[in-house]
Amino acid sequence: MSEDDPHKHKWFHDHLTPDLTLLHSIREVTYSGQSKFQSIDIINTNSFGVCLVLDGKIQSSEHDEFIYHEALVHPAMLTHPEPAKVFIAGGGEGATLREVLAHRSVKQVTMVDLDREVVDVCRRFLPSFHQDSFDDPRLELQFADARDFLEKNKDSFDVIILDLPDPIAEGPASLLYTREFYHLVKQRLDPEGIMSVQAEPASYHDLQEFAAIANTLKSVFPVVRVYQTHIPSFASMWGFITASAKLDPAGLAAEEIDSRIAARLSRELKSYDGYTHVAMFNIPKHIRQRMAATERVSTDQAPISAY
Amino acid sequence: MSEDDPHKHKWFHDHLTPDLTLLHSIREVTYSGQSKFQSIDIINTNSFGVCLVLDGKIQSSEHDEFIYHEALVHPAMLTHPEPAKVFIAGGGEGATLREVLAHRSVKQVTMVDLDREVVDVCRRFLPSFHQDSFDDPRLELQFADARDFLEKNKDSFDVIILDLPDPIAEGPASLLYTREFYHLVKQRLDPEGIMSVQAEPASYHDLQEFAAIANTLKSVFPVVRVYQTHIPSFASMWGFITASAKLDPAGLAAEEIDSRIAARLSRELKSYDGYTHVAMFNIPKHIRQRMAATERVSTDQAPISAY
Amino acid sequence: MSEDDPHKHKWFHDHLTPDLTLLHSIREVTYSGQSKFQSIDIINTNSFGVCLVLDGKIQSSEHDEFIYHEALVHPAMLTHPEPAKVFIAGGGEGATLREVLAHRSVKQVTMVDLDREVVDVCRRFLPSFHQDSFDDPRLELQFADARDFLEKNKDSFDVIILDLPDPIAEGPASLLYTREFYHLVKQRLDPEGIMSVQAEPASYHDLQEFAAIANTLKSVFPVVRVYQTHIPSFASMWGFITASAKLDPAGLAAEEIDSRIAARLSRELKSYDGYTHVAMFNIPKHIRQRMAATERVSTDQAPISAY
Amino acid sequence: MSEDDPHKHKWFHDHLTPDLTLLHSIREVTYSGQSKFQSIDIINTNSFGVCLVLDGKIQSSEHDEFIYHEALVHPAMLTHPEPAKVFIAGGGEGATLREVLAHRSVKQVTMVDLDREVVDVCRRFLPSFHQDSFDDPRLELQFADARDFLEKNKDSFDVIILDLPDPIAEGPASLLYTREFYHLVKQRLDPEGIMSVQAEPASYHDLQEFAAIANTLKSVFPVVRVYQTHIPSFASMWGFITASAKLDPAGLAAEEIDSRIAARLSRELKSYDGYTHVAMFNIPKHIRQRMAATERVSTDQAPISAY
Repeated sequence: MSEDDPHKHKWFHDHLTPDLTLLHSIREVTYSGQSKFQSIDIINTNSFGVCLVLDGKIQSSEHDEFIYHEALVHPAMLTHPEPAKVFIAGGGEGATLREVLAHRSVKQVTMVDLDREVVDVCRRFLPSFHQDSFDDPRLELQFADARDFLEKNKDSFDVIILDLPDPIAEGPASLLYTREFYHLVKQRLDPEGIMSVQAEPASYHDLQEFAAIANTLKSVFPVVRVYQTHIPSFASMWGFITASAKLDPAGLAAEEIDSRIAARLSRELKSYDGYTHVAMFNIPKHIRQRMAATERVSTDQAPISAY
Repeated sequence: MSEDDPHKHKWFHDHLTPDLTLLHSIREVTYSGQSKFQSIDIINTNSFGVCLVLDGKIQSSEHDEFIYHEALVHPAMLTHPEPAKVFIAGGGEGATLREVLAHRSVKQVTMVDLDREVVDVCRRFLPSFHQDSFDDPRLELQFADARDFLEKNKDSFDVIILDLPDPIAEGPASLLYTREFYHLVKQRLDPEGIMSVQAEPASYHDLQEFAAIANTLKSVFPVVRVYQTHIPSFASMWGFITASAKLDPAGLAAEEIDSRIAARLSRELKSYDGYTHVAMFNIPKHIRQRMAATERVSTDQAPISAY
Repeated sequence: MSEDDPHKHKWFHDHLTPDLTLLHSIREVTYSGQSKFQSIDIINTNSFGVCLVLDGKIQSSEHDEFIYHEALVHPAMLTHPEPAKVFIAGGGEGATLREVLAHRSVKQVTMVDLDREVVDVCRRFLPSFHQDSFDDPRLELQFADARDFLEKNKDSFDVIILDLPDPIAEGPASLLYTREFYHLVKQRLDPEGIMSVQAEPASYHDLQEFAAIANTLKSVFPVVRVYQTHIPSFASMWGFITASAKLDPAGLAAEEIDSRIAARLSRELKSYDGYTHVAMFNIPKHIRQRMAATERVSTDQAPISAY
Repeated sequence: MSEDDPHKHKWFHDHLTPDLTLLHSIREVTYSGQSKFQSIDIINTNSFGVCLVLDGKIQSSEHDEFIYHEALVHPAMLTHPEPAKVFIAGGGEGATLREVLAHRSVKQVTMVDLDREVVDVCRRFLPSFHQDSFDDPRLELQFADARDFLEKNKDSFDVIILDLPDPIAEGPASLLYTREFYHLVKQRLDPEGIMSVQAEPASYHDLQEFAAIANTLKSVFPVVRVYQTHIPSFASMWGFITASAKLDPAGLAAEEIDSRIAARLSRELKSYDGYTHVAMFNIPKHIRQRMAATERVSTDQAPISAY
């Protein structure tokens, strides 16, 4: 069978919505397992290279994970004047951690992931994602529910980054997108600090969760900024949000972003720079209007669910 | 069978690349036919409403065609100080025409489409796309090959808009993306005029044709500007390019765009405004770098092919 | 797009089991509608021609419906010495009717279908299936639930043929495969008569309903005979069963079948003859053993469900 | 994700014809590799268990391979009065070998497979298929092209079994289904011997290769018998053919088959017995007629090709 044979025979079916499914041809299934919390696959796709797949959903892909992780981490980190203590919830691939550690100001990172098996599988099969970040002495890694952890641990952080799986009804992250949880995050955030969150699809036809997460954060924080970028392996624009008492990434000009990157990071970035920042924070009119029409807030009583 | 039944039974398979296929569940197939040039389907999808499908590829969808057509038309039209004579190649849905006619300055539109059957089908089944634009007295509609037409007809135009199907090897649009054709377009463009072109996918994993079209235009025109926006029904960022002797949309500020829209258009737009303009013309770093690495130019001898 | 293009773009997805889906490329969707009882599609497939599809399941296809309908009708009809009065439940395509009417002995056929829209659509779009059988003066056609009809109508029949859709939980045919219903059928069957029933997939990996229907009939009738034939458009062996007080098709030799066909039918058959009869009633060992291992009986309290 | 989740995410796409694709949900991909000759996958499907997949086509599945292998081996073996020397071409799973070795009369088996990697992978991952048959002292295993081998090796055999992959244009088995090759097989067959061959799909909509192989064998051998059985994992009836100077399995009665099995085999069979034999050798009328309409013969000059 030739490489170009249209009759590829192994496919990953990504059920984007009940009416849209994206099929990725598979080069190799490297690992398949079932942890206490979810199914875990490492799938090498022909389009996007090696992917981490949890419960049937791509979490990130070798070819474009840098777009996602740079977008999640750097707007918040660079808006803060000098982030030293950082908290990461989720992020089992180690790539969010990798981006955080690239900031020279960082002294300590507390990372809490629910599922030790996910982290073990990623450490073994995704070396280009974590790039040995798990061995960095600044890291404290814990396996726990992030909400439990933050309730018990009274530390305060300069930046808190929520890199969590989709909020699914009855799923493990369902209560990590609610107003009550964001109140807890606010208590653990330094008053001068800032948080950022991956916030689900942000495409015109599929942005209800993005809008609801934005509303929920606005019910807790004074300054909330939504932004978006295109993640090819998700076949969608993807939403991110920062929230803080005062810090506002949207106020930073392209040149300021470029100069902070140059001054504060230990290496070049691949996706995020001044132009990218401007593209991300300028939301097209039809997206703004559709988001404005959504009033939903996520609460412990009535949490949002991605599908 | 309930609306939410995961076991939908009619699906449109959009073969995005040899390794990626997007499945859309079908509500109804309204029309299927075969013209002299291509297969034509009108498919009502559950995700994006009624779609025009030519040779198995979605050309535009009821729910998001406005994003595409506003992006294709308005940057060029608003950069020109007072467009009166406009040429459209392709655009059988009538939606590019609809956007052009919204400019009060327009006195005459010459639209040339190869396939009379496509236009007939669109007039009949896509009223929300053309909104009776085909009846506007400013329109002169011709059924011909756009290259033949421009070779024979020596008129000069303020704005030329190329809304053509994918360049496929041996396909009818194959020679409408080449250096030689763009030279012809330049001859028919007023020296103070500007052209714009739909320029294929512009996603990080799939932008070779976009880059090649940009290179080809740069080999002909002094000022070439690439921009992109997300089209959900294409499951991709989509590329557009303007080319001219002097006119430069990238130099226009958001406020200037908003004020020109207010002054010169006969109705509100749904997607394009100042913020959208800024988002479209600021290309993320990883896209810029990958495009810069492509040297391909399309020529009559060696035209590009989308697949 | 060429006829052989592997990238066909319209597909019918037949969900055979939760783990097996058969995709048929679509030439044309001729009709789609929703009746009071079910969704109705007439789909012209490239493999099997025009198909009737109810609630997403192929009921029969132009190219191979004759295999199914001859198998359902003739073993029972030819085992009876001289069938004059026949009852058909379901069979909206009119093809079961067509086969019954080919028997010269038949004086009267009572056909009861639940859904008038199905019959109307079939009369209009499936002329090669019914071949104007609906106009035969021997036919009395009623639109009603077959169970209701048989409860109220005390007529007696020589042959009763059940050509019903899959038994689906809460579906309209759910209670037409139960012991209680078969008791009612027995009451309406002449003591010298015989019934036959379409009895769901009969493939080694998917025969639980077939086995249960056989068990259920055995709990009501003294002589029950299972048989099977391959229906390509169902991608499966298909099961049929006769039941009676005394009549036994399995006891008939190939030559006897051929001579009864010649003597009693008004035209040639395309699939059913002596050899076919022998092939159908000799069940392979692995099928016999797996059926023997199933003890399930379908009752009004606990009816079987196909999926 | 529950076991019953309709949104399974890994699927094997079996391209049965250009217009029919069967999707099997995947439990696990156990092995994927590329030999000198073909791609090799061991895929554990939810419907049929562990499958050997060569160049994207299922060769046999854990749940139903016994149907195929018993059908291929035993009619020829039991028709022969006392098979001692047997030749197998192909059959890398070791299951054809397993069935041959169950005959007590067998003294020597020569098995020739082209691809050592296939055999190595099967020995490692398919123990239930070969059941250690490769360790039987009666076996001589060679890795070579079967046609080359038979040209050089002048031995004579009682039974020759061809268990070869599909004849694909330019593929390795393309010239192992031709008249010229069957002449060579005839020279290596004892005059009192018999051969059998797997002969491709035998479903009403897809039997051109089956018919052509039968025609080709008839151009070489005096007695040729076609038969068929349903293989669920192939979603098709499957064709087999015996050919010989005199031996005729179709002449054997069910009781004779049962008594030969009891007398000559060292264990019980799971699928093949007297009734199964009768079902297999009685070909339905519509299949007989369509086969009779095919005149194609496969030759080295113009070999048949499955797709």
